Amino acid sequence: MKLLRIGPAGAERPAVLVGDDSYVDLSDVVGDFDEAFFAGGGPESVRGVVAERTERGQVHRLGTQRIGAPIGRPHQIICVGLNYSDHAAETGQAVPSEPILFTKSPNTLVGPNDDVRIPRGSTKPDWEVELGIVIGARTSYLDTVEQARDHIAGWTLVNDVSERAFQLERGGQWLKGKSAETFNPAGPWLVTPDEIPDVNDLGMTLDVNGVRRQTGSTSTMIFDPYVIVHYISQFLVLEPGDLINTGTPPGVGMGFRPEIWLHPGDVMELAIDGLGHQRQTVIPPR
Amino acid sequence: MKLLRIGPAGAERPAVLVGDDSYVDLSDVVGDFDEAFFAGGGPESVRGVVAERTERGQVHRLGTQRIGAPIGRPHQIICVGLNYSDHAAETGQAVPSEPILFTKSPNTLVGPNDDVRIPRGSTKPDWEVELGIVIGARTSYLDTVEQARDHIAGWTLVNDVSERAFQLERGGQWLKGKSAETFNPAGPWLVTPDEIPDVNDLGMTLDVNGVRRQTGSTSTMIFDPYVIVHYISQFLVLEPGDLINTGTPPGVGMGFRPEIWLHPGDVMELAIDGLGHQRQTVIPPR
Repeated sequence: MKLLRIGPAGAERPAVLVGDDSYVDLSDVVGDFDEAFFAGGGPESVRGVVAERTERGQVHRLGTQRIGAPIGRPHQIICVGLNYSDHAAETGQAVPSEPILFTKSPNTLVGPNDDVRIPRGSTKPDWEVELGIVIGARTSYLDTVEQARDHIAGWTLVNDVSERAFQLERGGQWLKGKSAETFNPAGPWLVTPDEIPDVNDLGMTLDVNGVRRQTGSTSTMIFDPYVIVHYISQFLVLEPGDLINTGTPPGVGMGFRPEIWLHPGDVMELAIDGLGHQRQTVIPPR
Repeated sequence: MKLLRIGPAGAERPAVLVGDDSYVDLSDVVGDFDEAFFAGGGPESVRGVVAERTERGQVHRLGTQRIGAPIGRPHQIICVGLNYSDHAAETGQAVPSEPILFTKSPNTLVGPNDDVRIPRGSTKPDWEVELGIVIGARTSYLDTVEQARDHIAGWTLVNDVSERAFQLERGGQWLKGKSAETFNPAGPWLVTPDEIPDVNDLGMTLDVNGVRRQTGSTSTMIFDPYVIVHYISQFLVLEPGDLINTGTPPGVGMGFRPEIWLHPGDVMELAIDGLGHQRQTVIPPR
């Protein structure tokens, strides 16, 4: 299944995609794709009603309606840093011996095609195509990496937008460069694991103004999604609906010589096999 | 006013303290002291009903009822690192030139007298008495430090419990050592600013097993609470009900030679002038 949220920002309706351009509306069945939804059965709890409505022809046309992030604002967004060996190299940092974790403010979450706003004082705004994990159950102290499979609701495409000067030149922790408003486009859909035969072999790309900047594959991750979920669960409790951004392949603006930063009017387009496509326009500070 | 939440974990009722051991119940007036409450007027919106009920004698005895954290689970918990010059010195780190920010998972929040659980694999669990700021309104790009006053709902006492090996020896970012369950006792109350004549002159203490370990004053903060709120607002959007832990004075376990770590059975008692007192028992891993 591909879960999505349709409508104006802050008033999205939960739905499931059932064709290239058609969906079943679930707003009368579930409040939102939020912590309560994932804790109460999640995607599997709506599979029956989606099949029934599809069969009855109770489907709607997506058309040009806005798509929001595929989940409501999560309890937390955790990110893994330097999780592709080539990306670590391009940033001049060592390959980590265990996952580096940092966070983004949950209110950074926006839809896949929403504008990305450059923060005030920014000099080095940058892009990062990433595989996102959506957590499906309360998760703490997993005994094995294999158990992580039962705690993942699905996958989504994210752009882990970053301000490198704020991240690296303003006092030690990365949070400052990761949490500006609009800095976490996600979607267009949350794809359930049954639709992705091998999450560790997905091609991923990011273009800026039509020029290919990132080309990668989840096959070159240092720590794969199951290892990541198992690892994080040893340090903190993941809640249903939490989002984990798993790191970016080579080709970020910081990695070019000379470096390439985003400017108002730039267009980012990104994709991961099976997870859809995003397109954001960069806009100036408020 | 002193706002507090009374009752079993997960089922606390919002209330206001009106005497040493008596309170007005507000559970029929507000759902919780959460984001919606602070966005919708916050403490000032209940001042009238509290006065009215107090006058009518509609008060209850607190007695030995459990007190929860004074706010519901916030959108985010942001912490300031090394914000007391003496504490920076004891950890062997330089005094920062601007605030160091990191986060704790919001689900670390517990009541002021709840047990603090040592995480699995922990070797260096430590304490930190801190002044907590509760944000009272959506806050972004404040023009002046002075404006921060209008965005603060009140103050609370917090223990920023930390696992130093996870924080400093496991790969670069502090999150890992700050986010274990029960690692953020808060309360007993949220004290509105009108009750604290000078937040920059509050004595603070922390005892372990009856031995005074931390003695400090908010007067020795490097960045005061108004500077912190103004500063953070330049990087991200603070939501109503967000919690900011403002750093700890000298005397953490890491600062002693030899170092002193917490063990199951230890009792932490902490206090800040005007903000009340906490008492936690340390318990072993799950």
